[in-house]
Amino acid sequence: MRVFFDQRQDAHAPARELHNGEWMPYSEKPSRTRSILDRLGSPAAVSDHGLAPVLAVHERAYVGFLQSAHARWLAAGRAGDAIGYTFPVVGRRPLPLDRIDAQLGAFSYDAGTPVAAGTWEGAYWSAQTALSALDAVAGGDRQAFALCRPPGHHAGRDYMGGYCYLNNAAIAARAARPLGYERVAILDVDYHHGNGTQDIFLDDGETFFCSIHADPATDYPFYWGHADETGTGDGDGATLNLPLPRGTAGETYLAVLDGAMEAIARHRPDLLVVSFGADTHASDPICAFDLDRDDFRAMAQRIAGAAVPVLIVMEGGYAIGDLGLNVSAFLSGFSA
Amino acid sequence: MRVFFDQRQDAHAPARELHNGEWMPYSEKPSRTRSILDRLGSPAAVSDHGLAPVLAVHERAYVGFLQSAHARWLAAGRAGDAIGYTFPVVGRRPLPLDRIDAQLGAFSYDAGTPVAAGTWEGAYWSAQTALSALDAVAGGDRQAFALCRPPGHHAGRDYMGGYCYLNNAAIAARAARPLGYERVAILDVDYHHGNGTQDIFLDDGETFFCSIHADPATDYPFYWGHADETGTGDGDGATLNLPLPRGTAGETYLAVLDGAMEAIARHRPDLLVVSFGADTHASDPICAFDLDRDDFRAMAQRIAGAAVPVLIVMEGGYAIGDLGLNVSAFLSGFSA
Repeated sequence: MRVFFDQRQDAHAPARELHNGEWMPYSEKPSRTRSILDRLGSPAAVSDHGLAPVLAVHERAYVGFLQSAHARWLAAGRAGDAIGYTFPVVGRRPLPLDRIDAQLGAFSYDAGTPVAAGTWEGAYWSAQTALSALDAVAGGDRQAFALCRPPGHHAGRDYMGGYCYLNNAAIAARAARPLGYERVAILDVDYHHGNGTQDIFLDDGETFFCSIHADPATDYPFYWGHADETGTGDGDGATLNLPLPRGTAGETYLAVLDGAMEAIARHRPDLLVVSFGADTHASDPICAFDLDRDDFRAMAQRIAGAAVPVLIVMEGGYAIGDLGLNVSAFLSGFSA
Repeated sequence: MRVFFDQRQDAHAPARELHNGEWMPYSEKPSRTRSILDRLGSPAAVSDHGLAPVLAVHERAYVGFLQSAHARWLAAGRAGDAIGYTFPVVGRRPLPLDRIDAQLGAFSYDAGTPVAAGTWEGAYWSAQTALSALDAVAGGDRQAFALCRPPGHHAGRDYMGGYCYLNNAAIAARAARPLGYERVAILDVDYHHGNGTQDIFLDDGETFFCSIHADPATDYPFYWGHADETGTGDGDGATLNLPLPRGTAGETYLAVLDGAMEAIARHRPDLLVVSFGADTHASDPICAFDLDRDDFRAMAQRIAGAAVPVLIVMEGGYAIGDLGLNVSAFLSGFSA
């Protein structure tokens, strides 16, 4: 399976995040991709698809914010990474505000997703990596792996959050339509709910979104991913959330994945996009599932059983020492 | 004029706030009230009105959150003041979430309003102080001053923010109804827009809310206080926002106040509640108006000219060295 990655993604390197009331070193760091590439070898080259596929998912004002936020933070006399401190409460109307602090709040939902000097460059190339891996699938590869970093599944049309800025999986899923894929399914197997992806496709009946994740009653992102969120309007029934309790191990997880694959099969997709987080592994320092590498291989075998082309997009995974081994185990399941 | 204050208010003493991407010492500190009392002398005693008037304004779930949040933060293994890091984006549905981090986000709109060990005690007695000063007015005093701390005008029915937890002015305004006041007007002359008070009375045509404040295009709270917010439903036309640019000095400010007092007179109030912030003074370290103590006296004279009983509720003001002199100048204008 070809692996896609572009060194420019690592321009994104925030120093810290707000966690449990304290600054902590930023968990989503460039050494994650190094750990993975050490195992997977040299990546294939990423090509530049420009901004159009990004703007097919994200609002132009939000993209403009991402492009300019760090420079405007510095222009306001601040140092370090741009981080918000105030956020509109639920139900506020949208407002065309210009002050950097107002925009940081309006375009994000947490104080843990800073905009650093290289954030736009990293996010842009992470999206291009997903698009390049999609090209490989469209060109005939059965599967392709987009080593996206920063990840994307928490980013919505007009908001960042949870280490995510551009929604790589959503950008690729939408770009698949003009390549001839009529019915796309997205399977999100990160530890955390893919709230951004869900929001983007919530009213889209042609894109099926299914997520297996830690129960948002106990885990980030809290406000999304509950089982009763099933889509709206034309998308009614095209969103499936399968929250699981902390401590869930392989047997339970794989049984739930079987159910997810059955639901995906009923959608009759011609392309499956997998948002893959390695943070379901038992060794992950900030998550609480109990899967091992055999489970990762078994997951991939079940996904491969769908017998449709698969685009795998990297999301989370923070056990950096094991990350390459864990990702490699997952990918190996496709050729088993 | 009698001054009301209860020492238990100072149980609220957070250590720090998130500001411009860094921890800063908490600006809204107990030394504020000491600076004021040094000038005004011994306060009158505050009596306990219980929770009912608080629950007439704030949702029970929010009050329960305030009462328990710090203990639950400690129970979650955290130290120091409870502070959120994730906040639902605009438009999320309400959810009955139990995890402390989920609640900190759902019940607040900023990461600058921590819940410390004594926050509930301080906020409770701050509200009781407003209610006790209201009793003085209802008993025949022409004016009374509630030295509220923590302040209240940024707190809404179900959210805290901007150093505010319980909305003292709103609690007093609503408690005035059963005391025989049919038509209450609230004049907010803090530097910052009183977004919580506005939200609480937005659809209430019997309570007129008027705020003079720094333009939210440049200043906190950004998402409220724009001139086109004029009330909804039965309250249509009963909200008046008068945003002013940074650097506004006395002459302009007093002319705008004249207009505000005319609008208030058209409402024909039988009680005027004034949310008074001394942070419009030129010396304030975190605000940018250019008023002096003569302007403060002139403001009070204009307000006294309304010839209705006035309940003055303390909001912001962070130039602690001058704070007592500034507040004293304002109050002296009522007897001039």
